[in-house]
Formats: sequence, structure tokens, C-alpha cells
Amino acid sequence: MAKIATLITDLFEDSEYTEPAKAFKEAGHEVVAIEKETGKTVKGKQGNAKVTTDHGIDDVKPEEFDALFIPGGFSPDQLRADERFVQFTKAFMDDKKPVFAICHGPQLLISAKALEGRDATGYQSIKIDMENAGVKYADKEVVVCQNQLVTSRSPEDIPAFTRESLKLLKG
Amino acid sequence: MAKIATLITDLFEDSEYTEPAKAFKEAGHEVVAIEKETGKTVKGKQGNAKVTTDHGIDDVKPEEFDALFIPGGFSPDQLRADERFVQFTKAFMDDKKPVFAICHGPQLLISAKALEGRDATGYQSIKIDMENAGVKYADKEVVVCQNQLVTSRSPEDIPAFTRESLKLLKG
Repeated sequence: MAKIATLITDLFEDSEYTEPAKAFKEAGHEVVAIEKETGKTVKGKQGNAKVTTDHGIDDVKPEEFDALFIPGGFSPDQLRADERFVQFTKAFMDDKKPVFAICHGPQLLISAKALEGRDATGYQSIKIDMENAGVKYADKEVVVCQNQLVTSRSPEDIPAFTRESLKLLKG
Repeated sequence: MAKIATLITDLFEDSEYTEPAKAFKEAGHEVVAIEKETGKTVKGKQGNAKVTTDHGIDDVKPEEFDALFIPGGFSPDQLRADERFVQFTKAFMDDKKPVFAICHGPQLLISAKALEGRDATGYQSIKIDMENAGVKYADKEVVVCQNQLVTSRSPEDIPAFTRESLKLLKG
């Protein structure tokens, strides 16, 4: 089964972490929460979810993981201010491993300069940033690009996002 | 004295509103807080500041104001998801009125497609979004472009940001 690196910090969009993570685990995959520090409890912006991180970013390498998961909210904006998370993200895109990004998750992909020419979607506020980064943006619940990159817009899209992400983990 | 429209909602960066607003008022200017709704109390992300909005966006027109102020934090990202705030912002840029944007404030200017070829700065996480939008980005405490647009990077830059903004209001 797959070992999924999850980049997450405070003010993540609660359900965009909890629901896909639950589905991934139920399918037998391992979800590993990575932040700046190991063992830190980060909180969702709705106040519903807390996640205790499994690893600090300096303790992990991209090659230890099979896939990358980036929940949205205001977590990706904070993580992309730290070049370590940008380079970690870039490695999954360079290696063509499955990458699942929802809502503001694509902000990390923009900073990794990994979206030029890709089909993708994301939260409406970052649509223009994605387009300026070279994305062919589609206003759809889920976009799967080159059997590798799964993106969705918002919490309403979680079922489609989770379904397509699980397909790539099986494939 | 100038009447300054201020676009603000929850999770603004506390000091990026409170300190410039205090300086603007002390210099005799009027600071008018505008959100989706009139009379709503919005809270800063540090938990230190609260602002009760003076007007809902539907109750004001850009031509009623002399200048625009956009504090940072996660406020601008939420406001730019609403086209009314984007068009309001665009009007000040089109009319070449003074615009003061700090930290994530330039996100609204990106959505207004008002930054092509401009000299500006902003929070490090949005540097790539600003560059992709055509900005000549400078890593400086304050950038003044064409005697109209004042931008800064973060709370540390507030003194320079406020100083240059006040100069334009006098000019």
C-alpha cells in the first residue's frame, strides 16, 4: 500500500484533511503528516480538527514516500513561505509520483514551478495565480492530469477528489 | 484631508491594519473600513485587533474615496474571491489614486490585473504570484511605484509603509 506524505500546518481546511485522510487510511494506505516540527499539534481553521504531526520536514526525504497530499485552507500559503516545503513538493512532481492538491493546495505547486502547461483546478481566489503560472484551469469538481496530478476546488469537491486520488494509488 | 477606503475581513494581520490606520487618523485622514456587510466586527489573526466595518461593499462607490488601503494577513485572499472587491480595487488603480497594500494585500491587485509592469513588493509567499502577474518585484521594506502605488512585505516594514503612504496623501 502507499505511504502518503501530507504537508500541513495551522489553519488548514478541516474537512479537506480529515475526509481524504480517513478514506486513504480505510483503503490501507499510510498518511504521514509533515510540518516544520515533529509532534506539533496543528489546528484547522474551522476549529473542528487537530492533527499531531508525524515528522518535521528536515527528518524526511521525498524518496521515502509514494504520493503527496496537500490539503487547503491557509496552510499551503504558510508552508510555501519555507523553501524546504517547496523543494519537497517539487520532487514529487519531478518524479511523476501521484500528487493530490485541493483548494489552496496548488499554491505549493505554483511555488515549485510545477504547473506550466498542466490541466488543473483550485480554489477560485487562486484561479488567476494558477493561470499566470501556466495552468489550463478548469472549473470542475476534480481534474486529473497525466494520470498523476489530482486537483479540486473546495470542500464540496471532496468525494470526487478522494475517489480520483484513490484510483491513482491503486493504479 | 483624504478619505481612505480600507478593504478588510477576518484574519487580517492585526498590526498591518491598526498601526497604519492610527497614523492616517492622527494625520487627519478618515479611514473607512469596508467588508461584505456594514457593522460587522472582523478579527485579526493574532487575536489582538477587532474592527467594526463602516460599510458593506454594496453601499460604497470608489469615486467617494481618495485612496485605498489593503492590510495583509488572510483577509485579501478571502476578499478577492468576491468580484465586487476586485472591481472596487481595480477602479483605484485605473483612476491612478493612491493605493497602499502590505503583505498579502497585493493579492487583490493581482486579481484586478493591475500589476503588469509595476514595481512592487509583498509577502514572500506571494512573490512568485506577483512576478507571474508581471510585477518587477523588489525585496525591499517599501516600494513606491509611479507616485501612486505603495507596497511593503510584512509587519516589520510598517514604519516605512506608513511613512511613504502619508507622503502620497499629502502630495
